Amino acid sequence: MRDRVFLAELPWPEAEKRIAAGAPVFLPLGSTEQHGHHMAMNVDVVIPTAIAETVARQVGGLVAPTIAYGNRSQPRTGGGPAFPGTINITAHTFSLIVKDVICDLYRQKVRRIVVLNGHYENIGPSIEGIELALDAIGRERATDLTILRIDHWEMVRAQTLARVFPDGYPGIELEHASVIETSMMLALRPELVDLGKALHDGPAQFNPYDRYPRPADEVPPSGVLSLTEGSSAEKGRWLLDDCETRIAEIVKREFFRGA
Amino acid sequence: MRDRVFLAELPWPEAEKRIAAGAPVFLPLGSTEQHGHHMAMNVDVVIPTAIAETVARQVGGLVAPTIAYGNRSQPRTGGGPAFPGTINITAHTFSLIVKDVICDLYRQKVRRIVVLNGHYENIGPSIEGIELALDAIGRERATDLTILRIDHWEMVRAQTLARVFPDGYPGIELEHASVIETSMMLALRPELVDLGKALHDGPAQFNPYDRYPRPADEVPPSGVLSLTEGSSAEKGRWLLDDCETRIAEIVKREFFRGA
Amino acid sequence: MRDRVFLAELPWPEAEKRIAAGAPVFLPLGSTEQHGHHMAMNVDVVIPTAIAETVARQVGGLVAPTIAYGNRSQPRTGGGPAFPGTINITAHTFSLIVKDVICDLYRQKVRRIVVLNGHYENIGPSIEGIELALDAIGRERATDLTILRIDHWEMVRAQTLARVFPDGYPGIELEHASVIETSMMLALRPELVDLGKALHDGPAQFNPYDRYPRPADEVPPSGVLSLTEGSSAEKGRWLLDDCETRIAEIVKREFFRGA
Amino acid sequence: MRDRVFLAELPWPEAEKRIAAGAPVFLPLGSTEQHGHHMAMNVDVVIPTAIAETVARQVGGLVAPTIAYGNRSQPRTGGGPAFPGTINITAHTFSLIVKDVICDLYRQKVRRIVVLNGHYENIGPSIEGIELALDAIGRERATDLTILRIDHWEMVRAQTLARVFPDGYPGIELEHASVIETSMMLALRPELVDLGKALHDGPAQFNPYDRYPRPADEVPPSGVLSLTEGSSAEKGRWLLDDCETRIAEIVKREFFRGA
Amino acid sequence: MRDRVFLAELPWPEAEKRIAAGAPVFLPLGSTEQHGHHMAMNVDVVIPTAIAETVARQVGGLVAPTIAYGNRSQPRTGGGPAFPGTINITAHTFSLIVKDVICDLYRQKVRRIVVLNGHYENIGPSIEGIELALDAIGRERATDLTILRIDHWEMVRAQTLARVFPDGYPGIELEHASVIETSMMLALRPELVDLGKALHDGPAQFNPYDRYPRPADEVPPSGVLSLTEGSSAEKGRWLLDDCETRIAEIVKREFFRGA
Amino acid sequence: MRDRVFLAELPWPEAEKRIAAGAPVFLPLGSTEQHGHHMAMNVDVVIPTAIAETVARQVGGLVAPTIAYGNRSQPRTGGGPAFPGTINITAHTFSLIVKDVICDLYRQKVRRIVVLNGHYENIGPSIEGIELALDAIGRERATDLTILRIDHWEMVRAQTLARVFPDGYPGIELEHASVIETSMMLALRPELVDLGKALHDGPAQFNPYDRYPRPADEVPPSGVLSLTEGSSAEKGRWLLDDCETRIAEIVKREFFRGA
Repeated sequence: MRDRVFLAELPWPEAEKRIAAGAPVFLPLGSTEQHGHHMAMNVDVVIPTAIAETVARQVGGLVAPTIAYGNRSQPRTGGGPAFPGTINITAHTFSLIVKDVICDLYRQKVRRIVVLNGHYENIGPSIEGIELALDAIGRERATDLTILRIDHWEMVRAQTLARVFPDGYPGIELEHASVIETSMMLALRPELVDLGKALHDGPAQFNPYDRYPRPADEVPPSGVLSLTEGSSAEKGRWLLDDCETRIAEIVKREFFRGA
Repeated sequence: MRDRVFLAELPWPEAEKRIAAGAPVFLPLGSTEQHGHHMAMNVDVVIPTAIAETVARQVGGLVAPTIAYGNRSQPRTGGGPAFPGTINITAHTFSLIVKDVICDLYRQKVRRIVVLNGHYENIGPSIEGIELALDAIGRERATDLTILRIDHWEMVRAQTLARVFPDGYPGIELEHASVIETSMMLALRPELVDLGKALHDGPAQFNPYDRYPRPADEVPPSGVLSLTEGSSAEKGRWLLDDCETRIAEIVKREFFRGA
Repeated sequence: MRDRVFLAELPWPEAEKRIAAGAPVFLPLGSTEQHGHHMAMNVDVVIPTAIAETVARQVGGLVAPTIAYGNRSQPRTGGGPAFPGTINITAHTFSLIVKDVICDLYRQKVRRIVVLNGHYENIGPSIEGIELALDAIGRERATDLTILRIDHWEMVRAQTLARVFPDGYPGIELEHASVIETSMMLALRPELVDLGKALHDGPAQFNPYDRYPRPADEVPPSGVLSLTEGSSAEKGRWLLDDCETRIAEIVKREFFRGA
Repeated sequence: MRDRVFLAELPWPEAEKRIAAGAPVFLPLGSTEQHGHHMAMNVDVVIPTAIAETVARQVGGLVAPTIAYGNRSQPRTGGGPAFPGTINITAHTFSLIVKDVICDLYRQKVRRIVVLNGHYENIGPSIEGIELALDAIGRERATDLTILRIDHWEMVRAQTLARVFPDGYPGIELEHASVIETSMMLALRPELVDLGKALHDGPAQFNPYDRYPRPADEVPPSGVLSLTEGSSAEKGRWLLDDCETRIAEIVKREFFRGA
Repeated sequence: MRDRVFLAELPWPEAEKRIAAGAPVFLPLGSTEQHGHHMAMNVDVVIPTAIAETVARQVGGLVAPTIAYGNRSQPRTGGGPAFPGTINITAHTFSLIVKDVICDLYRQKVRRIVVLNGHYENIGPSIEGIELALDAIGRERATDLTILRIDHWEMVRAQTLARVFPDGYPGIELEHASVIETSMMLALRPELVDLGKALHDGPAQFNPYDRYPRPADEVPPSGVLSLTEGSSAEKGRWLLDDCETRIAEIVKREFFRGA
Repeated sequence: MRDRVFLAELPWPEAEKRIAAGAPVFLPLGSTEQHGHHMAMNVDVVIPTAIAETVARQVGGLVAPTIAYGNRSQPRTGGGPAFPGTINITAHTFSLIVKDVICDLYRQKVRRIVVLNGHYENIGPSIEGIELALDAIGRERATDLTILRIDHWEMVRAQTLARVFPDGYPGIELEHASVIETSMMLALRPELVDLGKALHDGPAQFNPYDRYPRPADEVPPSGVLSLTEGSSAEKGRWLLDDCETRIAEIVKREFFRGA
């Protein structure tokens, strides 16, 4: 039990002890969203959960249950609602979940929280959820509470991107279900990836605006915004290493003034 | 991939195919809640998820991601907010999640949904969430949509309870973190149970009313409302068998007019 | 005016005086819900209001206006929405009413509140309403506020049930519009009961799960879940006596440390 | 039972029959609000309920339970929150109640609704509640639904005001807890009025704007905005006669094309 | 820049300086609503914004951006939703905007706020918005915050009305898009008024109650509730002078104890 | 009046005529947000309003009132709440405004809407508002409604950026209150810019994550994220020309199948 970091896998007295010892609590935010013909739809759950687990082990932290339903997937950043299997929840509901969980963690004396996001469209509603929690707790009461909000893809170093994309990085905008996510999934859950099924109908050519109702042919039929060619477990490891190392550094610096 | 039933572990074209074939979708509702000194806090997640998985395999169904945060735990039915580690969300937020997920499943042409609940305090808000979804979809439009809402503990047969409790069944009210849940966890995730840690300070003697603020000594210090003595993986299997068999029967009868 | 206990029947200076003297305020929660062919639909209003009135007289309390619209009636516990005349409100609205009333009572310096519930489906939303009020007031500010939440049927003693049901108590689940409620109404408002109109098409045989849309024949056509035979005003008095005595005891003990 | 018009005093089959016969349903909106030293706080409940009862008898209608908690009382139109006993609920909650009740009446096939308001501050939120209900039902579906919204004080004829105030009508603005309401209460519930207790510290001299926080001395200490002198049960009858006659005419014309 | 009073036209350091110096902030509330054949639909924006600008100059204040979308226009007080061009927002949304803006002004240390309303149907929701803001800030924390809420038409003196209407004042009820508003617009934005286009089909004869759906012929086809004859820029100036003088006096007295 | 395009500056019959003729309605979304020492805080209002006006003239459109309060400004994209003068509203409120306005435009038979956004943090809540409107209208009813959502900075061509930044484009992330916005303001409202007041303390070096509470020194004291050097009205004209030309093309193609 000593080496467990998933909060929900502990009995409560152990949770209490670790929280009293100052354990940071990681809250991974994911989604259930199409990620091409070649991957499962839990990519945005698997990646931040795995990163949180690794970092939590390094810093004496705990990982709260991952929120598996994300804010509305958009065509330009994930394929959008046209793909069966993607389950969207509204921004307001998503923000309320984040708010409620943070408020209850605070009530239990957790004072160090890392919101670790794995789904692009969660950025805004996770900020809103944190703000709503601070409003509800009272900003002048919450002076001993520190929250970090991290989108894992911001943690990758430029030199790693250069190694992953020897022919040039196509940019984060088109990186949905493409080399970065595919490689990370190959490193973490290879049984959920079948590269042979990948269609190469991208890269997507989006209009630089949104149209409702959505044009029928906006997203490539595969759901892959860019390419999967060149994905490998090894590259996934490089990317995950960056995320884990960087987040561990941030957590130590922000919470423990260490390095 | 053929034998996968977790929706989020499928690529979207496989999800689409199964939904088109009429697959019922199971939505397990759990919680992160104290379950005594001897068990992890994910009991209400593990049990309905496992039951859903087994039944989904039998009936060609899919299992959507389990909602891991439950509506406010109450002292008389789960220990309440006094126990660290329990993470409560409000009834309104919980109902909105259920509503949003059902609405989006409907939009994707899912027409057979089983809401399978594992946490007592979710009963009301899960009913509300379903009703809100029906309001939003439009009851006159939703005539081809059938939703079943099942609390798994209602599926256990009287004769099984008699076998599990040869000295008499103490009643569902006190069955929190006690023989039934402990036995099911021993059958499903024995590594998350440590019977040696169980405290025998129950059974709880609750006042038949709620008091706010909560009296300090309302719940037994252990968080176990009744007893864990006599728990076993074998009994857990009996109980799970009942749930699985019964739910499979109900699903077949209600959705496929079979038996 | 001295002997009036209904808050709304007092002029404000009298209300102010009593609140300043520490009067507990009772907030009865009811519903407008079918209760069979033989009874009016205000059963869940009449009973808790009458109990609150009696107890308030004994303990120097006040009775706030009863909330006459209850949370969504469910088939298994009241017949559900299929019966004309039943007026359902949503859980969220119901909780907000309870919240708003408690917040405003607190603002007026009421510090002892008894939420007395007469409708099964109000249990969850009344808990939520109280919690929302405590969140809004601020739990650390509200230390001088005590709220009791009582479902009146929990107040009946086992020996009284044995007297009322000499052939055995069928259980609270089926007690909707049946002997207990009918007897209490015969004691309180006999003109609203016509036993000759009672249909004996029960007891209801419910499935142990909810199905949406509701099966047409789920509830007995009468709306009576169990039986009305054997109902009498005398039995109603026994039951009411239990409620009144027990609640008065609880109120004295919790609020005045008396007995 | 034949002559009962309060919906909640009927068994459901009788309610169903009357609704099927086209009975208009009256929904009285009240408040629990200070009305001076000389009157109970249920004035805004008693008056519209009594008028609804009388008119319902004349037109074959039904009276739904009165909403007894009104939207926030304001100093310039009722004394405001400074008076103990006044229980305010928020505009949003009030609108949701009205919305929910109308939606559920509609679901039960009620197609003629009279929202009869007795509290000034309910005007806006009752309009909003009706609009929200029409939005929820769907305006294009609701073509067979007619709702009338009436503030009872608009029903009094000029000649009646002239008789009630032989020295000139001070205007509706200051008529809170004054001659009109006092006279109507004397006619309806004389035991809830004690003219000897009336303080003559008015009429109020309000600033023509609102200030928050409220100035301490804004409302006369009595809570009476104008005068009670000259109130009588006879005058109350004249006023009630106007309301009853006029509303019956309107209902017949609008719903039955009669006169 | 020194003479600018519109908050949004200042760079932030200048805003900070003025707020630190105690500048009252005016928040004008308007609407986009039909005002007859002869006037633009921004009347309720133009008038309170212009008054706020003038007064702000006199008292060292700032004018925050005017809210240009008002709460649902009603037939009896503005023509209602039947007129194309009128854009209605719900009471709840309107209140939330007012709440959010006030909360954020408070966070920025603004302690003197004047909510200046130009649209009849905003009265209730602006009160609610202020109350919600005070609830959110915490009434016991907000003791240094003073908010004035002013409907500009309440500022006109009786003698000015007598001059404007030498043949008698028809009353504020019918003053929508009529002499008062038309004259003020002639004084402020004459290019948005074309008196030759005014139809004289009024005055409106409203029923003293609301009917849903709205009767087709309730409002005069022109949208003018009363008359425009006799409107002039000169009268508009008289009316604006009253508003500006009176509000400046109130602001000085309430905020600066001057006169 | 013929050449007016601001909806609120028209009388309603003119608005009705243009809507009947198929006029697209532009809804500009802005904010009141710090934009450095050298510029007014209405930059995000001025720019999209001006672009909308120009394009509306070209395509026979109308411009609805600009929403002047934007969703919470964030440090990394606008300086955040630390700067006095910035007025933030919550994501939920912002989405509700957008929803309400679109719903009401739809009710008035507007079928072509362009949501033109000028504030980065409005992206998510404007998408949500549009989605909520489509949910409320009913997606199957709204088939004749087309909505375009455009962030104006996406309209600038690469070659224009190359001309504006001869030494290389620093990227949109740091473009808050910098050369692009400053140049556009110089072209549109030069009196609201004072380049001499610009501080050159940037470019900002942000952490790639969010921290709550915000670190004191996160944003450069000036509030300028990048540089203002090299800003000119001429460059602003180039940028605006791109936006206007491109949006006019999009509108013609999407709404009128022209080019």
